[in-house]
Amino acid sequence: MMRTRPLKVALLGCGVVGSEVARIMTTHADDLAARIGAPVELAGIAVRRPDRVREGVPAELVTTDATALVKRGDIDVVIEVIGGIEPARGLITTAFEHGASVVSANKALVAADGAALHAAAEANGADLYYEAAVAGAIPLVRPLRESLAGDKVNRVLGIVNGTTNFILDKMDSTGAGYSEALDEATALGYAEADPTADVEGFDAAAKAAILAGIAFHTRVTIDDVHREGLTEVTAADMASAKRMGCTVKLLAICERAADGASVTARVHPAMIPLTHPLASVREAYNAVFIEADAAGQLMFYGPGAGGSPTASAVLGDLVAVCRNKLAGATGPGESAYTALPVSPMGEVITRYHISLDVADKPGVLAQVATVFAEHGVSIDTVRQQGKDGEASLVVVTHRAADAALSSTVGALRELDTVRGVASIMRVEGE
Amino acid sequence: MMRTRPLKVALLGCGVVGSEVARIMTTHADDLAARIGAPVELAGIAVRRPDRVREGVPAELVTTDATALVKRGDIDVVIEVIGGIEPARGLITTAFEHGASVVSANKALVAADGAALHAAAEANGADLYYEAAVAGAIPLVRPLRESLAGDKVNRVLGIVNGTTNFILDKMDSTGAGYSEALDEATALGYAEADPTADVEGFDAAAKAAILAGIAFHTRVTIDDVHREGLTEVTAADMASAKRMGCTVKLLAICERAADGASVTARVHPAMIPLTHPLASVREAYNAVFIEADAAGQLMFYGPGAGGSPTASAVLGDLVAVCRNKLAGATGPGESAYTALPVSPMGEVITRYHISLDVADKPGVLAQVATVFAEHGVSIDTVRQQGKDGEASLVVVTHRAADAALSSTVGALRELDTVRGVASIMRVEGE
Repeated sequence: MMRTRPLKVALLGCGVVGSEVARIMTTHADDLAARIGAPVELAGIAVRRPDRVREGVPAELVTTDATALVKRGDIDVVIEVIGGIEPARGLITTAFEHGASVVSANKALVAADGAALHAAAEANGADLYYEAAVAGAIPLVRPLRESLAGDKVNRVLGIVNGTTNFILDKMDSTGAGYSEALDEATALGYAEADPTADVEGFDAAAKAAILAGIAFHTRVTIDDVHREGLTEVTAADMASAKRMGCTVKLLAICERAADGASVTARVHPAMIPLTHPLASVREAYNAVFIEADAAGQLMFYGPGAGGSPTASAVLGDLVAVCRNKLAGATGPGESAYTALPVSPMGEVITRYHISLDVADKPGVLAQVATVFAEHGVSIDTVRQQGKDGEASLVVVTHRAADAALSSTVGALRELDTVRGVASIMRVEGE
Repeated sequence: MMRTRPLKVALLGCGVVGSEVARIMTTHADDLAARIGAPVELAGIAVRRPDRVREGVPAELVTTDATALVKRGDIDVVIEVIGGIEPARGLITTAFEHGASVVSANKALVAADGAALHAAAEANGADLYYEAAVAGAIPLVRPLRESLAGDKVNRVLGIVNGTTNFILDKMDSTGAGYSEALDEATALGYAEADPTADVEGFDAAAKAAILAGIAFHTRVTIDDVHREGLTEVTAADMASAKRMGCTVKLLAICERAADGASVTARVHPAMIPLTHPLASVREAYNAVFIEADAAGQLMFYGPGAGGSPTASAVLGDLVAVCRNKLAGATGPGESAYTALPVSPMGEVITRYHISLDVADKPGVLAQVATVFAEHGVSIDTVRQQGKDGEASLVVVTHRAADAALSSTVGALRELDTVRGVASIMRVEGE
């Protein structure tokens, strides 16, 4: 049954992930051939700086001319692990035009421009696969696109950034503040020198856009995703969470509205109960919790980043794309038929934990409660703590629209008796 | 893009799962059509007892002649949710011969005769999909067959039977004995009137065979799986596990031998550390832990049984199989190219927790230790407890071959000072 003419693969990028892809393609060539039904050959590796190519990568395959490699005309599959928007987008488009299918690990690009890429793939009868773009080795894109294709997904709740989970886990377990935990993450290699993409939630927001699009069969780009990072999470927030029987996680949350007519996607720190399966996800691990009509609650857990895990996802896609090539078929493309609008953050319905610094005198609680009532936000519990003439008031609300909560907080700030709003955090996963 | 001629589906069996499949196919017809690219039509439903067909199932589609339905000649896909070996096997084979692809939830049949079914599918250019056969709604077959197709799986460790997990969870949380916990499971509908298939491990063994075959690309049938049920697990075992910082779970364990030249598959109760992610899987939930070379450690968690979850898996497969039909292609078939032999239980290497009732006199420990040493089983820890002239000795070993442990236990039973072997339990997941 085995075809003897090899499928030719071009690898764009040879950093942590790319070099691992090249290594496995070389050392496990026989296994890949058996699983695909034809041998696969690494035909070229495009890099920006050939002097930096890692040991073990076949030097004779290395080129700096990625465009020429993609245009060679004999390439069956292009693996793109460069990251970022350009030149990745141009190279992928060129690959499709030259008849190649594409396996990409590029969350930023797919989240920004997935629809156009899918259209280019379809126009050329090619595949675009990107399991590695979301949560590294954890199979998520394929289960959502295929395993749950006969079900209706209502909610995706995930820890999809390992760096921030490491930081929050440290804060939770040691009582450290944000800066201290970030320093430890940097020292251990979990955070990059410039941690902005992780700690400000950009990385998680790109993944949320991709997950929401696939889960709800609609188009969601990173611009549709409400994004808050974790730089303002304090040791006091973590302590408040513990008093509530919760911990704080940076969550990517994609939801179908109760009436089914719209969806939302957001990334922000949130308190979740310690009994929720996501609460026990430690260190830099990722996990995604999915709620579907028929399937119920599913969770997928594993390493969310790193060279080897990401390479595992890339190679799984490579096998699928090569099998499709041999069969003269393509896998599932973009599924955006529901065309559901993405609602703004103001329409998200959830619960809130609000910590206020207030004057320690009679009547403050009544004033605060009145403001909540005037804005239609119902209070679940209030806890008052006095300290040295000042007092703090912790309010946990029932479910309310984010816009109503924002107005409430705005009005609270106007009160003379409210000295400051120490923190606002959403409560999820209950 | 939408084809208007519908794909025709025959449903064999209309119990808990089948009626839910029929319901979703009817109520979500538009979604299924959009995701497949063509409408799907339920063309017939074969049942044994038409008087028992549930409300909501279209009566005009019901027939008692499953063979005639499968032979009609216009059926594109047969969904088999009858269970058991015959008549399911004959009907599936007939379906292939008449050009239909098959989606099955039948773990017993796939575990007994998967190779022949795959061959029949391939000979007729048809698909055989069975995501629902293992762990209900949890995507496992597809992630193993496809997402991890570029990786090397070394170990699968799973809780794949909800009934037994419910029983063990009750025993763990309430201190109840096996019979009491089984009674509760029966009362709550988690255990069937005849619980043999669950509590004796037959159900889990079928799933272990399927998982091992896919994970290691080799043929494993249920006869290759070493099987022990949980009927002999006692409250004392559970208490011993707690003292070790463990709990007891009925595990399906599929392993590649250290030298890579063989595999093993087994189902038995085992102690696992409370820190292992599988330890916190409660009630009737299932979870499967996978270790792969590149991906690292992954876990998949969700409801392992029930009408809706199983229907979700069936319909995911239906979408895939219909898409393949439209593309004139087939999905991945059997992958058994490694042809690795399945080693017997005696060659499994693991740790053991052995509880002995011994005479309370000097020299007993020395005698016992000598027996372990003579059989090449190294002792990790020993705990002695005296009670009323009798004593108990709890021995935890280092890793040893199962055959060596069996010989050790045989020799221990010969000792005059050993009054009985109270329990032997393997220790896993460390």
